[in-house]
Amino acid sequence: MDKQVVGILGGGQLGRMLVEAASRLNVQVRVLDPTVQSPAKQISNFVPHVDEPFTSSEAIHALARVCDVLTVEIEHVNCAKLVAVEEAGEAKVYPSAATIQLIQDKFLQKEYLGAQGVALPEYARCDTLEEVLAAGDAFGYPFVLKCRLGAYDGRGNYVVESKADAEAGFSRLGGTMLYAEKFVPFSKELAVMVVRRPGGQVATYPVVETVQRDNICELVYAPAQIDGRVREAAMKVATDTVSCLPSGSAGIFGVEMFLHEDGHTVLVNEIAPRPHNSGHYTIEACCTSQFENHIRAVLDLPLGDTSLKVPAAAMINVLGGASGYSSVLEPCLASLEVPGATVHLYGKEDAKAGRKMGHITVVADSALQLRRRTDLIAGRLANASNAERARLAYRLCQQPSTNGAVCTEELNDVRDMSPLVGIIMGSDSDLPTMRPAAQLLEQFGVPFELTIVSAHRTPERMFEYARSAHERGLKVIIAGAGGAAHLPGMVAALTPLPVVGVPVKGRILDGVDSLHSIVQMPRGVPVATVAINNADNAALLAVRIIGASCPTYLEAMAQYMTDMRVGVEKKIERLETTGWKEY
Amino acid sequence: MDKQVVGILGGGQLGRMLVEAASRLNVQVRVLDPTVQSPAKQISNFVPHVDEPFTSSEAIHALARVCDVLTVEIEHVNCAKLVAVEEAGEAKVYPSAATIQLIQDKFLQKEYLGAQGVALPEYARCDTLEEVLAAGDAFGYPFVLKCRLGAYDGRGNYVVESKADAEAGFSRLGGTMLYAEKFVPFSKELAVMVVRRPGGQVATYPVVETVQRDNICELVYAPAQIDGRVREAAMKVATDTVSCLPSGSAGIFGVEMFLHEDGHTVLVNEIAPRPHNSGHYTIEACCTSQFENHIRAVLDLPLGDTSLKVPAAAMINVLGGASGYSSVLEPCLASLEVPGATVHLYGKEDAKAGRKMGHITVVADSALQLRRRTDLIAGRLANASNAERARLAYRLCQQPSTNGAVCTEELNDVRDMSPLVGIIMGSDSDLPTMRPAAQLLEQFGVPFELTIVSAHRTPERMFEYARSAHERGLKVIIAGAGGAAHLPGMVAALTPLPVVGVPVKGRILDGVDSLHSIVQMPRGVPVATVAINNADNAALLAVRIIGASCPTYLEAMAQYMTDMRVGVEKKIERLETTGWKEY
Repeated sequence: MDKQVVGILGGGQLGRMLVEAASRLNVQVRVLDPTVQSPAKQISNFVPHVDEPFTSSEAIHALARVCDVLTVEIEHVNCAKLVAVEEAGEAKVYPSAATIQLIQDKFLQKEYLGAQGVALPEYARCDTLEEVLAAGDAFGYPFVLKCRLGAYDGRGNYVVESKADAEAGFSRLGGTMLYAEKFVPFSKELAVMVVRRPGGQVATYPVVETVQRDNICELVYAPAQIDGRVREAAMKVATDTVSCLPSGSAGIFGVEMFLHEDGHTVLVNEIAPRPHNSGHYTIEACCTSQFENHIRAVLDLPLGDTSLKVPAAAMINVLGGASGYSSVLEPCLASLEVPGATVHLYGKEDAKAGRKMGHITVVADSALQLRRRTDLIAGRLANASNAERARLAYRLCQQPSTNGAVCTEELNDVRDMSPLVGIIMGSDSDLPTMRPAAQLLEQFGVPFELTIVSAHRTPERMFEYARSAHERGLKVIIAGAGGAAHLPGMVAALTPLPVVGVPVKGRILDGVDSLHSIVQMPRGVPVATVAINNADNAALLAVRIIGASCPTYLEAMAQYMTDMRVGVEKKIERLETTGWKEY
Repeated sequence: MDKQVVGILGGGQLGRMLVEAASRLNVQVRVLDPTVQSPAKQISNFVPHVDEPFTSSEAIHALARVCDVLTVEIEHVNCAKLVAVEEAGEAKVYPSAATIQLIQDKFLQKEYLGAQGVALPEYARCDTLEEVLAAGDAFGYPFVLKCRLGAYDGRGNYVVESKADAEAGFSRLGGTMLYAEKFVPFSKELAVMVVRRPGGQVATYPVVETVQRDNICELVYAPAQIDGRVREAAMKVATDTVSCLPSGSAGIFGVEMFLHEDGHTVLVNEIAPRPHNSGHYTIEACCTSQFENHIRAVLDLPLGDTSLKVPAAAMINVLGGASGYSSVLEPCLASLEVPGATVHLYGKEDAKAGRKMGHITVVADSALQLRRRTDLIAGRLANASNAERARLAYRLCQQPSTNGAVCTEELNDVRDMSPLVGIIMGSDSDLPTMRPAAQLLEQFGVPFELTIVSAHRTPERMFEYARSAHERGLKVIIAGAGGAAHLPGMVAALTPLPVVGVPVKGRILDGVDSLHSIVQMPRGVPVATVAINNADNAALLAVRIIGASCPTYLEAMAQYMTDMRVGVEKKIERLETTGWKEY
């Protein structure tokens, strides 16, 4: 693809996946890593590699002399050496040494980002125990004490539980180059990958949710199951964060964020100047992976499409465990039989506990199918507790359900998913009529929201609700209305989504007034009208609409129809056995 | 993943993509190929390779001694040597030497498949010129004369145009080991990948359409734009074909087929006992690629999910051209800027004309978006004619349209796509009412079908139509009916798809009879009812339903709504300028 040669400092799994992406583009990569058969080198035979420590000054110069661009798969590198490479003009360095240096010191990173207007949790420099105690007074307990340098996967962090705990934390972390961070009461941890070209152009990946256990990323869900407008906001925060970095900050960046318990405040936790664990899902789930886009960026080639190409994806880390390599193999072998799953093993020999040995990506047609698929793997993970294994085993033996309905154990999962259907009604007096729609959607495992939106009493709210519906992630709106019944049609006039109208029966005209008002829309703006008071059918229509493009729900609908037939067949049998007189 | 080592005979691009898949699973691969830096070896540094001809007996034995399983990336290998490996028990050979031998002789292949009941075009052995002439008499002209051995990418084929041409063909192909094949008047060329484990279990990929130029595969569309039931039939033919191969036929197989002009007869053209060019799209578009599934199969691991994970995909071959490597780079560089496109370059140096240098995969949310994306690349291909470039350039400058409508040049493409919407009506007398629905779908570029299905006059046809609709690939059914108007509701009772009902106004009750009959469905079976005689709105609802899961159509709907507003704004302006008296 390109005649330029890329040198990578570090040859671990991130380097390996960079090499894989580069090879597809026929881009030559040289790896600097002390291990001769490091993961990245195993899959590259184009050119000789450099088998030296990536902190070695001579080795870095040697690499630079045979490469056009140097990049990193780890930020804990000797930046002074990279500055020398830049200054000598031996090779380009992306991201620049200055950027890496800025990011590798988490306190400087915060100072820089804060000055650029990025929203951060409160923090304070702590060079003495007194400063730690002062932070405790200012932030309250618990708060987090962190090393400025070299921390990763939870190492270098200490949660200070109380004043009495402060000294222990201070000395545990070495008593120098520390800072304190106020604890953020967050509802979810989010992450976004952003890729930036040398000229500053950026492309932003979807927002994902990361699930940590013992400070190591365990699971990533894409897209994050949050309101679509919060997703947009988080993407903007991530885009702004990477855009504000100094010039020369080319390559892929991982931006980790907290979504505050308030449901909408997004704070930046930290950034990584390289491919990131939370972006591994992009290999299978996005049009262009984070790895290929990093290669493109450092070569100043056009950035690839960062959008999701599947409805839902998850990434599960495979860590070394107590039983060595079999802790790694068991979940991988299990996932070979899980539809939509892809195994990545990094070619590491020593499966010591907690070491990242590989990952499994799962893709699915819906968040519901995704949970079912990840459940099949999660119970096999070395780090899953026995209780978790038992719980998942119980859930799995309950699936698939016999009546097209989700199992009880799944309901909490579904409630945590971003709504696909919005049920709205003009007044709470319509709730008894509309409630069956909610019950049916729940039964089908369709995540939904239900609220009051009145065309006549809350016109601005209706306007806002309808206009934003598709941006927030809804696919169908069910609107119930009685009498003049303007709500469904007005909403349909404001959204490109399909709107299902339920005419609610009033006391005067038997609901025919609502029916005609809802169904007789002018050319150009359709409302899918169902029978008077028949909210059940509105929900079933919504399931059919979603199922048209999603096999999981199409199959559930087919099952539901079979169940209806079987239900009637049982009545027939009972009628025949009992006789019509006694029936 | 597995302690077994796989040896591959041949180190070209197929071997390269096999190595890529194996590395992800941490499976070691040794490549036998005379070229030291062959494409496959470039991305494998695990273990030493064997730099010898893959026809060399000693080299094959040497490879077998360090591998557990041998496999091939090309069928033109010395099978006698592989038999010796099998007999000596040096390594397993998948697919078995006997299978490769059977397939590499295309005449024996046909004899075997024919005996197993696989539907084939007529053929005849031709060892003499007399037999060639006899074939001409039997099959008529033109027919195809083919070499039994060693033919690929059109080499070894000769189209015999007339009796006078027979001798030229006979001698051109060497005058020995030939056979003749009757020309099949086909509407499309189809292909299916099938993977088989040593125990005989198979998994079948979707049906794709291959577009050949000069006997070389140029483009692959997945899924093939044909009726869903024909797709099912072709999948069954392919599955049966691979299933009937002798035991030991493990690995991935490509099955090339003709879809006869009659629209439903599927004939097997030939099979390949290895990854196939028509299956390259599976890397980006299916849950498990053909390459990974080949590795899984020869290691007797569970087979991966063969289903498509994106709505539509295409594969474009990048061939060497007159201008050398720049013929290769130009389309690749262009495609870096095309959303959904992924470039694969094989690491070959010499870009001689017609050589497969790489390929580009494109994924999309719909067949319409896919055509638009492939158009952006196709005009850059070295083998595109000037006329083609001009035609595509013209089309591209017409997009995107300003009124949410597809450009005229696209209409023929859309007509060739599998219908997403079925418009049905009880009688041709309903056509004037329903026609606007067809016109609107055409304007939006939604592929559709339109036919007469009467609940009362053709109940069996209605039953069959509704039952098969989702299997045939429809996502929405629009049914128009007047009077008793049972069609929409009865169809809804027979399909899990959303059904849109259009009440057609009769002469007696102003269509209120139809409206009530269509909308007042019992609980359990919804019909999305629109206004009386308002087929426009039915089509717009269908577009909204498809758009709920497909951004291309959602954006077109948003554009349509904007256009409506602008249209009214113009009228407002005219009214204000003209005044109400003159308006």
